[in-house]
Amino acid sequence: MKKFAVLGYGTVGSGVVELFHKNRKKIESKAGEPFALGYILDLRDFPDSPYADKFTKSMDTILADPDITVVAECMGGVEPAFSYLMQCLSRGISVATSNKELIAQKGAELLAAAKAHSCNCFFEASVGGAIPIIRPLHRCLAANEISEIYGILNGTTNYILNKMLTDGMTFADALAKAQKHGYAEREPSADVDGFDACRKICILSSLAFGKHVYPDSVYTKGIREITLEDAAAADALDGAVKLIAFVRKLDDGRILPAVMPMYVPHANMISRVDGVFNCIEVCGDAIDRAYFCGRGAGKMPTASAVMGDVIEAIKHHQTVFSQDWVDAGTQDFIAGIDELTCGMFIRFAKQESAEDVLNILCGVLDQIGCEQNAEDEESVNAVENAALITCKLNQTQRKAVLDALAQKGLQIAHWMPVMEA
Amino acid sequence: MKKFAVLGYGTVGSGVVELFHKNRKKIESKAGEPFALGYILDLRDFPDSPYADKFTKSMDTILADPDITVVAECMGGVEPAFSYLMQCLSRGISVATSNKELIAQKGAELLAAAKAHSCNCFFEASVGGAIPIIRPLHRCLAANEISEIYGILNGTTNYILNKMLTDGMTFADALAKAQKHGYAEREPSADVDGFDACRKICILSSLAFGKHVYPDSVYTKGIREITLEDAAAADALDGAVKLIAFVRKLDDGRILPAVMPMYVPHANMISRVDGVFNCIEVCGDAIDRAYFCGRGAGKMPTASAVMGDVIEAIKHHQTVFSQDWVDAGTQDFIAGIDELTCGMFIRFAKQESAEDVLNILCGVLDQIGCEQNAEDEESVNAVENAALITCKLNQTQRKAVLDALAQKGLQIAHWMPVMEA
Repeated sequence: MKKFAVLGYGTVGSGVVELFHKNRKKIESKAGEPFALGYILDLRDFPDSPYADKFTKSMDTILADPDITVVAECMGGVEPAFSYLMQCLSRGISVATSNKELIAQKGAELLAAAKAHSCNCFFEASVGGAIPIIRPLHRCLAANEISEIYGILNGTTNYILNKMLTDGMTFADALAKAQKHGYAEREPSADVDGFDACRKICILSSLAFGKHVYPDSVYTKGIREITLEDAAAADALDGAVKLIAFVRKLDDGRILPAVMPMYVPHANMISRVDGVFNCIEVCGDAIDRAYFCGRGAGKMPTASAVMGDVIEAIKHHQTVFSQDWVDAGTQDFIAGIDELTCGMFIRFAKQESAEDVLNILCGVLDQIGCEQNAEDEESVNAVENAALITCKLNQTQRKAVLDALAQKGLQIAHWMPVMEA
Repeated sequence: MKKFAVLGYGTVGSGVVELFHKNRKKIESKAGEPFALGYILDLRDFPDSPYADKFTKSMDTILADPDITVVAECMGGVEPAFSYLMQCLSRGISVATSNKELIAQKGAELLAAAKAHSCNCFFEASVGGAIPIIRPLHRCLAANEISEIYGILNGTTNYILNKMLTDGMTFADALAKAQKHGYAEREPSADVDGFDACRKICILSSLAFGKHVYPDSVYTKGIREITLEDAAAADALDGAVKLIAFVRKLDDGRILPAVMPMYVPHANMISRVDGVFNCIEVCGDAIDRAYFCGRGAGKMPTASAVMGDVIEAIKHHQTVFSQDWVDAGTQDFIAGIDELTCGMFIRFAKQESAEDVLNILCGVLDQIGCEQNAEDEESVNAVENAALITCKLNQTQRKAVLDALAQKGLQIAHWMPVMEA
């Protein structure tokens, strides 16, 4: 009988073990055959676990068992996960991982190893938790030229921004509340500074465009500077501040991935994704756009994605599905943040006359000849302490706008890009 | 070189041909090898088409070509599509179809034939157009016990309901506008009477629960009776009227599929899905809930889904992925609409005192001992011409509520079930 092993018995790993036993009948029916949990690798002891007999501290024990068909890696971090998975793949053992750091850093190598040894490297759980996105993007949308992907890929920051808006909390208070509820780590940097979302957009970018995008190549800005006033002003301008991870294909074939807080108009479904939910918008030439939303983290949601991969590996052993992207040897195909064109959400340090602001903005926009929107859409709007420009500006044009406002004595507290609807 | 054939050169079929040639490089790279369009089957002549040399009127020509690996069926209707696809499958030729009527009527037979001949029957395009839902539901969520699926599965009716609310149009005027824009057929019954959505929920139900659900077994009610007043009153009670196709697993293991207009609270993303977009919510024990939204119809969106299936069939020829459901020989596992438990949205024929209505409703709900919601949620609400009960009532309890209102002289214009948030 085929067996699978679980590496790491933390939140996700224990969820995988629990889910397998809870829904075993359904899971085996989907896999087309019965299979068993062979081992759980963890350095700690769990003498009271109902699965106490499955624990091992030795990767070699797992590798030596010829019945092991697939390994579910839920350890996190690059090492020793990477070495372990390379050992598995080199023996033809498929892997299913929830480890976004590992895939963002070493995806190309793992995929090449899977291909070379006719087995599979699956990572549905690495982006968007429970949300099916890797397989849909790679397979269902395979006929599309992907132009853009936008997503709320970090539930912790989304929860914090949400609390700031709905409960009027400061960033610090909302972070404390997220930590209290276990949504944020005591060391919250990976979430609030955008590194977690960065890893996920690296994975989606690599998958959509075929070349490995490394986290170091991606402009990443978190939400520490976002204030209560930003959140309220965005709402007054019929939108919300969200930490958006995105990638856009440029006209010259390069791509521009980045992570940053953005103003998202309420007309876009993503603006209304609240709390710890994630949501990903994929734009392609045939589909126009599709949205995938759900729980982006948590024990059972993430375990669901890992187990889905385990089932596929059991069912289709030796078929090579490998999501194929390669290390391009350079990151030259990635454009820098300076090349972003976007609308602007501008918050002023104090109350200003909306009429004056509109006059200044219309003047400067005419001057720089920026593209106007369709006739029925306003391309400029203002409320008492903020303004919104929805036509797409390049860096020079954005500077002209900020300069024009400064020249008239308006103090700018904060500006951020506008995500298109 | 492997080849594929397209059956039917209507909107979807011509979209498949166009998309293949537009994105051929990307498509072949995803398939892992070059492949070609072999034939287009259509009884009409297209002498000016750039693909004129591909047309044939004979299915036998296609079946006789040993290079044909997969057939994309875009003819619509049960026959002759069914006979053609059975001929393909019996020869080991995989099929990809956008034909919801065919899959809803004959899915179990087609899937059995695919399995028997080690090839694949794919139908991603049959539900939700461009939206990846079949593969995600079947594979990514395979480890979940699915409890409920809810969806806006018909863009035409969603467009009409939307126009009624936002532009204050009557049903008749909104339908005329939809017909003018080509969103609705001249004979609109399949859309407005719910038959199209019914076929799609049959497919999702069969896939999620493993037994073929036939359209005749599904309670189906369209939107002809919905008025402008219903739409406005739902909005006043912070929700929207949507044509919802759903299936719910009951405690005894049976399932309850149905199609009917429902009140959807704005707290649920589905209430805000507008125009011709579709959106599907899937609830499972591990994922909680996930949403899949996008364009539910149209030439290129549907072609995208068909082409994704063609790519998979080319790439994984002879692997049997068949989504496995069977004809259970009976439809006894399907509960009737009488067994539905739900909240109620009630619109009165004329203006009533919200206070009086609340008093009556609270009285009767206490009397029938209905389950109250969590403490921080109101389970009853009322505006001047409508009321909302969000606790789940069975048929007897619903009758008690309607009787209590009638006894106090309140005239009920319309009531509909509440979709849970």
